[in-house]
Amino acid sequence: MTAGLAERVIARDPRGIARAISCVEDEGAACAGLVRALFGRTGRAYLIGITGPPGAGKSTLVDRLITRYRRDGFTVGVLAIDPTSPFSGGAVLGDRLRMPSHATDAGVFIRSMATRGHLGGLARATAAAALVLDAAGTDLVIIETVGVGQGEVDIVRIADVSIVTLVPGAGDEVQALKAGIMEIADIFIVNKADREGSDRLVAALEASLSLHAAGPHEWRPPIVQTVATSGLGTDDVVAAIDRFRAASSASGRRRLRNEYQLRERLAARAIEYIERDVLAAGEFDTILDQIAARELDPYSAADELLRRAGLKLGGDSGAT
Amino acid sequence: MTAGLAERVIARDPRGIARAISCVEDEGAACAGLVRALFGRTGRAYLIGITGPPGAGKSTLVDRLITRYRRDGFTVGVLAIDPTSPFSGGAVLGDRLRMPSHATDAGVFIRSMATRGHLGGLARATAAAALVLDAAGTDLVIIETVGVGQGEVDIVRIADVSIVTLVPGAGDEVQALKAGIMEIADIFIVNKADREGSDRLVAALEASLSLHAAGPHEWRPPIVQTVATSGLGTDDVVAAIDRFRAASSASGRRRLRNEYQLRERLAARAIEYIERDVLAAGEFDTILDQIAARELDPYSAADELLRRAGLKLGGDSGAT
Repeated sequence: MTAGLAERVIARDPRGIARAISCVEDEGAACAGLVRALFGRTGRAYLIGITGPPGAGKSTLVDRLITRYRRDGFTVGVLAIDPTSPFSGGAVLGDRLRMPSHATDAGVFIRSMATRGHLGGLARATAAAALVLDAAGTDLVIIETVGVGQGEVDIVRIADVSIVTLVPGAGDEVQALKAGIMEIADIFIVNKADREGSDRLVAALEASLSLHAAGPHEWRPPIVQTVATSGLGTDDVVAAIDRFRAASSASGRRRLRNEYQLRERLAARAIEYIERDVLAAGEFDTILDQIAARELDPYSAADELLRRAGLKLGGDSGAT
Repeated sequence: MTAGLAERVIARDPRGIARAISCVEDEGAACAGLVRALFGRTGRAYLIGITGPPGAGKSTLVDRLITRYRRDGFTVGVLAIDPTSPFSGGAVLGDRLRMPSHATDAGVFIRSMATRGHLGGLARATAAAALVLDAAGTDLVIIETVGVGQGEVDIVRIADVSIVTLVPGAGDEVQALKAGIMEIADIFIVNKADREGSDRLVAALEASLSLHAAGPHEWRPPIVQTVATSGLGTDDVVAAIDRFRAASSASGRRRLRNEYQLRERLAARAIEYIERDVLAAGEFDTILDQIAARELDPYSAADELLRRAGLKLGGDSGAT
């Protein structure tokens, strides 16, 4: 069945793509075959990650980028994992309706990603969805996410270029940047640049960047000012992305992405195996009862389950 | 060595606690023994999660809560994983200095958590740090984090009560709430309630909450208005936490927390084992080379490594 689905993805059948994404999102064993069938066709799409606080105008920017890239003849996919995004929420047709300017364009595929469970599930599902779009011949996959925290660092791991979008006036964002997100941005966008305080924000960013003394051949994140509602600056954003794409070794970033995906898959598969093939019915509940009663600690419980799964764990971890 | 460290934690020696947290944060096998030694002493601390967008005044609220709880005779721990928080960043002594009003109080322990690597590392490290504080006899552990995304959902999994803090005026937050965070809040705080638009935000929240038709015996998240800078409303927050604590079954939430920790530990341990005991030197790089060349897909690579680790995986996952 997944063989037929793979063919539909490669033929760029929208419903086939939608179904394939749902399949790989669920991470069942049934879809591993689909990933295998598609993987050889991937590696051509360029993944653009866009993050920033709520209200920074990311969705309007994405809309502008879609229009621009379509005009240039590229196919575009959007994976929206921003709960504040108009792209987000609802079913596939709903997604398309949220984006009326591109609703009838077969060269645009929009998909919202639901917030998911444990173990970096969201980043993993997004990576898998990007892989499906890649195999379908999508030139550019835009991943839109919200915030300035750990979730965004995870997203960076799967994107080829990371764009952080800020707006003048809040002030808090720069603090956040100083504290952690500075390292993950390849490009900064100061949106709503017609607002009071835009130049001040740019200057603050410049100052922060100058602290991260980049080497002479290192990429120095440019700061692009935009007014997404009018389209001002969109060309500069595209030019910055092109420059980064040319300057950066895609292989380095992709290696990180592959490494991340491999680790994530190892973890998910090991847990799936233990739940299905190691644990007896109801045993997981019994273990949780024992942990609740403090008769067992989660570390010992994990080691015992892994031993039963076949791992030859030493007794070292408790002795040192 | 960890045996002595466990004793120092239980004796509430601040440097011992700090070292123990660093130890469990690193997740090395060396500290599994420490977790085992401490685990029987845990289960008494109440974990309070506070999240919200940057600039919502979370740190000032936390400061107010510390003062109030200390006055009532409770010991308090703070785990700050908000990059915009004044609690965050720097070493342990640095953390204390950032909080001058509590710097000399032995009943307060403040710790910033660094943003960490893959696989939900931050939530896992925070859970482990909370466990150390719990074993040290800390009555209340406040976990402060920023944002409205996946990271916060992870935090909810480790807290006994989840508080979402908002401020009037932005508007975006309510959208975000509607889209996803509504489900994770046990209590809402509208901070800076002396600002224009506070009542409107409360009304919008009420309207959103009424859509989530709670059953007659279900908890309906209260909305508490505060002005953290003046301390107004702090008592109402504490009262709301007490009511939630009385109304909710701690065991349900804690079971979820234990389950989460067990899964996380299984994943981390399995990967650690594969890297140390299954892979030959340089082999991980070779696998990544093969994936980059599209000669191997990450799903097949993961299965092969798990088989070599001892798991009896069937061939089913590729066949369906």
